[in-house]
Amino acid sequence: MMPMDDDMESGALRSYQDKPRTFPSMRNKPYTPRIIRLLMGINVRVLLVLLLLAFGGVFYIGAKTSPVIVFVFSVCIISFLLSTYLTKWVLSKDEGPPEMVQISDAIRDGAEGFFRTQYGTISKMALLLALVILSIYLFRTPTPQQESSGLGRSTSAFITVAAFLLGALCSGIAGYIGMWVSVRANVRVASAARRSAREALQIAVRAGGFSALVVVGMAVIGIAILYAVFYVWLGVDSPGSMKVTELPLLLVGYGFGASFVALFAQLGGGIYTKAADVGADLVGKVEQGIPEDDPRNPAVIADLVGDNVGDCAARGADLFESIAAEIISAMILGGTMAQRCKIEDPSGFILFPLVVHSFDLVVSSVGMLSIRGTRESGLKASIEDPMAILQKGYSVSIVLAVIAFAASTRWMLYTEQAPSAWLNFALCGLVGIMTAYVFVWITKYYTDYKHEPVRTLALSSSTGHGTNIIAGVSLGLESTGLPVLVISVSIISAFWLGRTSGLLDETGNPTGGLFGTAVATMGMLSSAAYILTMDMFGPIADNAGGIVEMSQQPESVREITDVLDAVGNTTKATTKGFAIGSAALASFLLFSAYMDEVSSFSHEPFKEVDIAIPEVFVGGLLGSMLIFVFSAWACSAVGRTAQEVVTEVRRQFIERPGIMDYKEKPDYGRCVAIVASASLREMIKPGALAIVSPIAIGFVFRILGHYTGQPLLGAKVVAALLMFATVSGILMALFLNTAGGAWDNAKKYIETGALGGKGSDSHKAAVTGDTVGDPFKDTAGPSLHVLIKMLATITLVMAPVFL
Amino acid sequence: MMPMDDDMESGALRSYQDKPRTFPSMRNKPYTPRIIRLLMGINVRVLLVLLLLAFGGVFYIGAKTSPVIVFVFSVCIISFLLSTYLTKWVLSKDEGPPEMVQISDAIRDGAEGFFRTQYGTISKMALLLALVILSIYLFRTPTPQQESSGLGRSTSAFITVAAFLLGALCSGIAGYIGMWVSVRANVRVASAARRSAREALQIAVRAGGFSALVVVGMAVIGIAILYAVFYVWLGVDSPGSMKVTELPLLLVGYGFGASFVALFAQLGGGIYTKAADVGADLVGKVEQGIPEDDPRNPAVIADLVGDNVGDCAARGADLFESIAAEIISAMILGGTMAQRCKIEDPSGFILFPLVVHSFDLVVSSVGMLSIRGTRESGLKASIEDPMAILQKGYSVSIVLAVIAFAASTRWMLYTEQAPSAWLNFALCGLVGIMTAYVFVWITKYYTDYKHEPVRTLALSSSTGHGTNIIAGVSLGLESTGLPVLVISVSIISAFWLGRTSGLLDETGNPTGGLFGTAVATMGMLSSAAYILTMDMFGPIADNAGGIVEMSQQPESVREITDVLDAVGNTTKATTKGFAIGSAALASFLLFSAYMDEVSSFSHEPFKEVDIAIPEVFVGGLLGSMLIFVFSAWACSAVGRTAQEVVTEVRRQFIERPGIMDYKEKPDYGRCVAIVASASLREMIKPGALAIVSPIAIGFVFRILGHYTGQPLLGAKVVAALLMFATVSGILMALFLNTAGGAWDNAKKYIETGALGGKGSDSHKAAVTGDTVGDPFKDTAGPSLHVLIKMLATITLVMAPVFL
Repeated sequence: MMPMDDDMESGALRSYQDKPRTFPSMRNKPYTPRIIRLLMGINVRVLLVLLLLAFGGVFYIGAKTSPVIVFVFSVCIISFLLSTYLTKWVLSKDEGPPEMVQISDAIRDGAEGFFRTQYGTISKMALLLALVILSIYLFRTPTPQQESSGLGRSTSAFITVAAFLLGALCSGIAGYIGMWVSVRANVRVASAARRSAREALQIAVRAGGFSALVVVGMAVIGIAILYAVFYVWLGVDSPGSMKVTELPLLLVGYGFGASFVALFAQLGGGIYTKAADVGADLVGKVEQGIPEDDPRNPAVIADLVGDNVGDCAARGADLFESIAAEIISAMILGGTMAQRCKIEDPSGFILFPLVVHSFDLVVSSVGMLSIRGTRESGLKASIEDPMAILQKGYSVSIVLAVIAFAASTRWMLYTEQAPSAWLNFALCGLVGIMTAYVFVWITKYYTDYKHEPVRTLALSSSTGHGTNIIAGVSLGLESTGLPVLVISVSIISAFWLGRTSGLLDETGNPTGGLFGTAVATMGMLSSAAYILTMDMFGPIADNAGGIVEMSQQPESVREITDVLDAVGNTTKATTKGFAIGSAALASFLLFSAYMDEVSSFSHEPFKEVDIAIPEVFVGGLLGSMLIFVFSAWACSAVGRTAQEVVTEVRRQFIERPGIMDYKEKPDYGRCVAIVASASLREMIKPGALAIVSPIAIGFVFRILGHYTGQPLLGAKVVAALLMFATVSGILMALFLNTAGGAWDNAKKYIETGALGGKGSDSHKAAVTGDTVGDPFKDTAGPSLHVLIKMLATITLVMAPVFL
Repeated sequence: MMPMDDDMESGALRSYQDKPRTFPSMRNKPYTPRIIRLLMGINVRVLLVLLLLAFGGVFYIGAKTSPVIVFVFSVCIISFLLSTYLTKWVLSKDEGPPEMVQISDAIRDGAEGFFRTQYGTISKMALLLALVILSIYLFRTPTPQQESSGLGRSTSAFITVAAFLLGALCSGIAGYIGMWVSVRANVRVASAARRSAREALQIAVRAGGFSALVVVGMAVIGIAILYAVFYVWLGVDSPGSMKVTELPLLLVGYGFGASFVALFAQLGGGIYTKAADVGADLVGKVEQGIPEDDPRNPAVIADLVGDNVGDCAARGADLFESIAAEIISAMILGGTMAQRCKIEDPSGFILFPLVVHSFDLVVSSVGMLSIRGTRESGLKASIEDPMAILQKGYSVSIVLAVIAFAASTRWMLYTEQAPSAWLNFALCGLVGIMTAYVFVWITKYYTDYKHEPVRTLALSSSTGHGTNIIAGVSLGLESTGLPVLVISVSIISAFWLGRTSGLLDETGNPTGGLFGTAVATMGMLSSAAYILTMDMFGPIADNAGGIVEMSQQPESVREITDVLDAVGNTTKATTKGFAIGSAALASFLLFSAYMDEVSSFSHEPFKEVDIAIPEVFVGGLLGSMLIFVFSAWACSAVGRTAQEVVTEVRRQFIERPGIMDYKEKPDYGRCVAIVASASLREMIKPGALAIVSPIAIGFVFRILGHYTGQPLLGAKVVAALLMFATVSGILMALFLNTAGGAWDNAKKYIETGALGGKGSDSHKAAVTGDTVGDPFKDTAGPSLHVLIKMLATITLVMAPVFL
């Protein structure tokens, strides 16, 4: 076996290359969503006129609301134009030789096919949930504010449902965009890698940048449009109607819709990608000893499809949801605070998050475009470290972000009641930006093999599979320590910066604390579009590497894509640290927003969650348990699906013995179909758990509270559930992500030749660790990020059930 | 290699048996603690007179306090007499042939040597901590109650320190007793196994019963003596002095001392046992393919020593601490409630836990003695399932416990203010007993290979090491679900039974809720001595098996010890479920006791812990993080130490190639020494983390609260830390224990011949899982049980630091 492998790795495989391969064309025509086909049927001029009319209408409504909204609209539209330019630029690149195109087509077909089925299922569930929300809101008692503002029961019901569906739709589009560009960019990156490393890098970055701009822009413009439409429609701030400070509460449906779709996208995609990966590796790498992405492995196309649906599509939906949830919760907190402080024009505090993310689009675009392909000439460029190039772009973004953030605080948060408050909030933003930096550094320390922890982990592989796993689990559990300390310091310092900002409520108490933490969260996300670009870069480079490997390109091309792939792994790991940090901060905000919402619904003050009450403590216990069981189900889904893949791949190797000698073609399509249907089936159980249990627990304790004479018991129990789930979720996600990343890199470290190198017993033990880490870091971990925020938004929207 | 193994397993190993082996005598004389040597130096008659005088004094003080105390004393002394009878009975059994004695001596020397060094270190730390406590109490402001009762600053300081030291001493003795009997019983069980299975079982049960009675009896009598002495010395309830309802707060030092010692005993012992086990297995089983407990493995004596110091000694200290903490917290809650309800004679509510555990001694003894060796004759007895026999004894205990519990509630908790309250409390006790039962059942479901989960886990081994670990981790995480639901239902239902008991405070509010959960906890522990007996049975049987294997006894003898060992594994797993369930309930009580303590110290009401305050939330975050990092350090300590063992064993196999052919003797002593010194070193880091961090966090936030004008901030943050740590600790311990147990049994299931049986690839994957599970279930998991309760007692004692 081994000599053949060596032959293969040196590229001397004539027998196979002589035989032109055709990949199973699952569908001949690339799939176009119905809505786009419909639009394409209309005359182009009519379309243009309609588009201009729509823009005009939006701008008109925006102008009637606030000049800030007009600014936000303009920035978003400019970024959309820029993203259109980026797509055109990427698509203008060549797709390489036919064998690359064939492989890429197979990947695209698989990805689009899964996407269609997955989002079909998700949209059915979303519609069902929309009906549930509608009926809940139609039967609940309206709040006194709503009554006084003339916002009837049915209006509020339809507003919530419409916002939910719009959020779900936009989240779906965000996921689709992420996948759409990655299945097109992968082959172009692969093709460019034949010419220059720099060009390949640039294509991958711009493709990632395209979807980042669309995702962030869509989150911002969606909320801005909803805000403006509600503002004008409900006649906000005119006598007898709603106050502007209450408007943001109407937007929570949008956040819930976004996180609902993101949760299932991440679950389904995460199960898909890792089941295919683990299954392919277990038979390919471990049993048969063939390299990764080898064309003889029947699961290889499924693995490559997985990168697109699991990493690109899911991460797009995830980040869309993060930004939407964070904007809405910050708007709610800003509104509440402005109202309490009786600030004359509260709109600055409410619209601040939209401005921050508009600047985010600008600074990230500049950072992205600073990565140029033409500056240096051929040879020198190919030697340069791609990580350094990405880091340089990040530094550009971050420096600009600090300046833009300070400017936005001065512009939006200046108030005569507390003239220096904006400065305090600018410092809060700085706290957030620094937290992001430190988080990224900590993640690197624990997952990069340049540092102690991964080296120790690699060393533990030399005493066997068992010690490798023990060491990896310990490393992951230990790695929760520093991030928690950092998050603790940021929460407290941002809170105190906000509290000492000079903003006082009617009774003279300082009130800016929570808004301070909100501003810190925004600071953390103030260059989110660039982060998403780096994140998207990873799977595109990974896919390009797969295409290069499968189309049997020369060694030099593979080297280039290997370097890009390695950089992609690092960026993926660091952005995960970033994602969990912002989730931790954001969920604390959403929690406060939830308490505001409950007191507004229940006509009662709801200022504290006392865990000394047994029922509330039990709520917390159940919340933490939810995280454990959810993680269990996410991991076991991958394990089960991977076992199906293993069985299928083994079957193919037995039934078609010619595969190993390149004489027979593996049935890639069957593996794709198996993984797709299994992931769809497996995503339901953990997803349903996450959605049903907070609602059910809240409802049960509401009833219990009713019979035992404890008002608001349901709401309090849900609050505790939320907090404990958040804390456990953060820790569990940190554990899973870091352990997974560390195992991955410990294996890579051994593959560099350390401790016996490839093929040694240490390497085998390290491969086991890597396999275990796969569902940890790419299924359960990222799903927990989404879950934490989804729990916060679901409790906001479902609050009427608990009251 | 394989044929030789087969030879060996059939017992045909003349070459080795011909050569009489001598084991390294690390010390020739068995070690006797200095105090016992001192006592033995005194004339027996003088000793007897002294003893009688001491008893007389104790009884005199008891009689001056309450007749209940006299009852408790009497029961404890009768159990001590019974336990003396049991020891004599066990020690009267023969020790078998000289080769058995030699092995047993080596084990005893190793265990006693480690125990001495370990407890030497622990006692130095305890003395240091006692000084710290003394200085803290000397400099704090006394509470108004203390001032009014004339309890000066220095008196209260010395009382707390004395209680702490007594608790630590008793906990140490409990651990020593556990180990003392097990290193003596193991060889006697091994010897008896040559004659009859039933006799072997009976010896193991009675040896376990001896230490169970001593441990439980010592916890009860220790608290009773402290209570009575303080009562008489401080002139409680006489005008101008302390009220009896405040007395229990003086006992918290005892609980803290007990849990302090138990934590280090469990950590050190747990690291020792699993490092030796993992290290021995990795080289012996996996690399060299020799069976477990094979005399050629240089780490085999270390492994057998580990069972004694890790399982027997540590579990003795752990259960001692559980019972002490639970009695004291229930006494505090009973006192507080009685005071609030203005019950005329509150001593019933305060002394109730002592009575429950006195009955525990009685009913467990009956259960234990119902296991007889003589009822059936030879052959039939050896076929009978030992598990069924143990279960029958358990059923006897539990039925009697229900009756005794109901009687105790009627006796102690009857009050004219609420004539039916005792009935409600009896039902609370029933809730506790049922919870214990359900917990044991759930643990069995998840860890026994008769049921679905372990079968699925075993199946996942057939696709490799990776899928086995993924499936095991998922199983462990999922297994937290049902126990949490059960605990939730018990907490709420016991609380409501207590609340509706009819006990009202001055303002007419129902107040019995918390005491209800306390009674449920007592119900759960109402046959603790029998549970501890079953728990101790495991390692004794395990050790006996090792001695049989090492002394090359015939197959038939090994079969008997194998069956006993398998039963021991089951009882160990189920008692862990029991331990974590009672820890969950007990820590909720300790939490309430902490809040009472803080309000008594701070002269301020402390009724709620509001996690909506950022600092308090951060406290919770830090508490959960503490659990993750502690588990990490406990696991990695085992991994690191095991690697040292692996290196040493490999070295011996290389340097003494004759070992494998029985021509050279392995250096057992070196492995024992390596493991012992490594465990002592490694236990410090996690232990120090657990003790220092709550104190440091409380102190930092006290300072922060002082400067930001938030009174009691330190105490509130510590309360949140405690609650979140408890919740995360319960979940983490459930995860670790269940995953470990399931892996162990999945391996055993495959060894029965399923999925390819011993030696197959599935079996290798299952062995990896078992290795990973070892530090989970026997180091980190049980240490977490102790940690949860230690955190609760440390916050009670250290409360003055946070205020």
